[in-house]
Amino acid sequence: MADTWLPSLVTDSPEEGFALAVKISRNSVKVTQPDAETRQKLRPDYADDADSLIAVSQVIAINFQTVAAANGYWRG
Amino acid sequence: MADTWLPSLVTDSPEEGFALAVKISRNSVKVTQPDAETRQKLRPDYADDADSLIAVSQVIAINFQTVAAANGYWRG
Amino acid sequence: MADTWLPSLVTDSPEEGFALAVKISRNSVKVTQPDAETRQKLRPDYADDADSLIAVSQVIAINFQTVAAANGYWRG
Amino acid sequence: MADTWLPSLVTDSPEEGFALAVKISRNSVKVTQPDAETRQKLRPDYADDADSLIAVSQVIAINFQTVAAANGYWRG
Amino acid sequence: MADTWLPSLVTDSPEEGFALAVKISRNSVKVTQPDAETRQKLRPDYADDADSLIAVSQVIAINFQTVAAANGYWRG
Amino acid sequence: MADTWLPSLVTDSPEEGFALAVKISRNSVKVTQPDAETRQKLRPDYADDADSLIAVSQVIAINFQTVAAANGYWRG
Repeated sequence: MADTWLPSLVTDSPEEGFALAVKISRNSVKVTQPDAETRQKLRPDYADDADSLIAVSQVIAINFQTVAAANGYWRG
Repeated sequence: MADTWLPSLVTDSPEEGFALAVKISRNSVKVTQPDAETRQKLRPDYADDADSLIAVSQVIAINFQTVAAANGYWRG
Repeated sequence: MADTWLPSLVTDSPEEGFALAVKISRNSVKVTQPDAETRQKLRPDYADDADSLIAVSQVIAINFQTVAAANGYWRG
Repeated sequence: MADTWLPSLVTDSPEEGFALAVKISRNSVKVTQPDAETRQKLRPDYADDADSLIAVSQVIAINFQTVAAANGYWRG
Repeated sequence: MADTWLPSLVTDSPEEGFALAVKISRNSVKVTQPDAETRQKLRPDYADDADSLIAVSQVIAINFQTVAAANGYWRG
Repeated sequence: MADTWLPSLVTDSPEEGFALAVKISRNSVKVTQPDAETRQKLRPDYADDADSLIAVSQVIAINFQTVAAANGYWRG
């Protein structure tokens, strides 16, 4: 089976869940702008801009909400 | 029955679920701006703009949340 | 009973559910700006603007999330 | 008991639920800007602006999601 | 025990729940900008701006969604 | 085991839950812009700007929604 970047939403801990949410968020940019060089060129535009960093955090928050629910909030 | 672009929210894997979320997001643009040429002309405006790419990621995140819930988070 | 534009959130399929989410989204604009002529005049402002189209997609995504939950994700 | 503007989230129909979501959304503006005259002066700024109308629709969509869940999606 | 500003999410009514959502939203600004004078100076920037008032309403809508779920939608 | 910044989503109270939501939100900025000096330089851009403060509050609201659900809304 071809390698999959998102085999599961299940993680061992909230911290891993957060990292997965970051990965999903970044993949959303990748799927919209596949060219790595363009993405790299755009980095200063968001990484050095307060409002852009806040907007990125919102995307991560939504994806983290999904991953947390998927893991029953790691309440084991 | 006419061909349907969204027969089901059920997918085999999170990765397929993510791809469906991207499809639903793109269809939202299509239903608002049906003209393919216009949509293509607009591509540089969002694909080469950090804030626009972040905003697209947010739409995908919300649709992915819906698809993930629809699939019981693939915890089968 | 006066004709109702939103008799139910139940639809036969995800595709119909998506169409209902679009209808609810458009009705939100109508309830805020009842004048059809004004709304029509504004169309180029959003239909030919990448960020506006993305913002519309986000509204549709939230309403689709509501309609999908209302239909048990059409898992029959 | 003093008159309450939000005695319940329960409504008879989705259409009434949508109207309640609009009411809750408008009340959020009122609680932040209590002065009716100021709010009226601001109306052209959002009612004749595509992006503002879309942003209003997003607030209504979130409140409608809450009201719909509160009513079990009117599935009776 | 030191005085807590958020002892519980439970309220007696939707209206009290809405007021709590407003309180939580305002506290988010306070925790990010603790200086009351600065916050007061910024008031005209959002209280007299349509888009800012809409954005505030969105934050209240998300917090109200949380409080409403916490109270079982006051369906008692 | 290496120190984890997010061992659990469980907190003793809504107020602690809110503080955790703030921590998760701030960590989203950190994971996107790891350089502390840059983040510090950007503080005036958002801490003294009404719209940025509102946008931060929205991120906190989404993360608080996640943490509140994780704690069963502290209904004990």
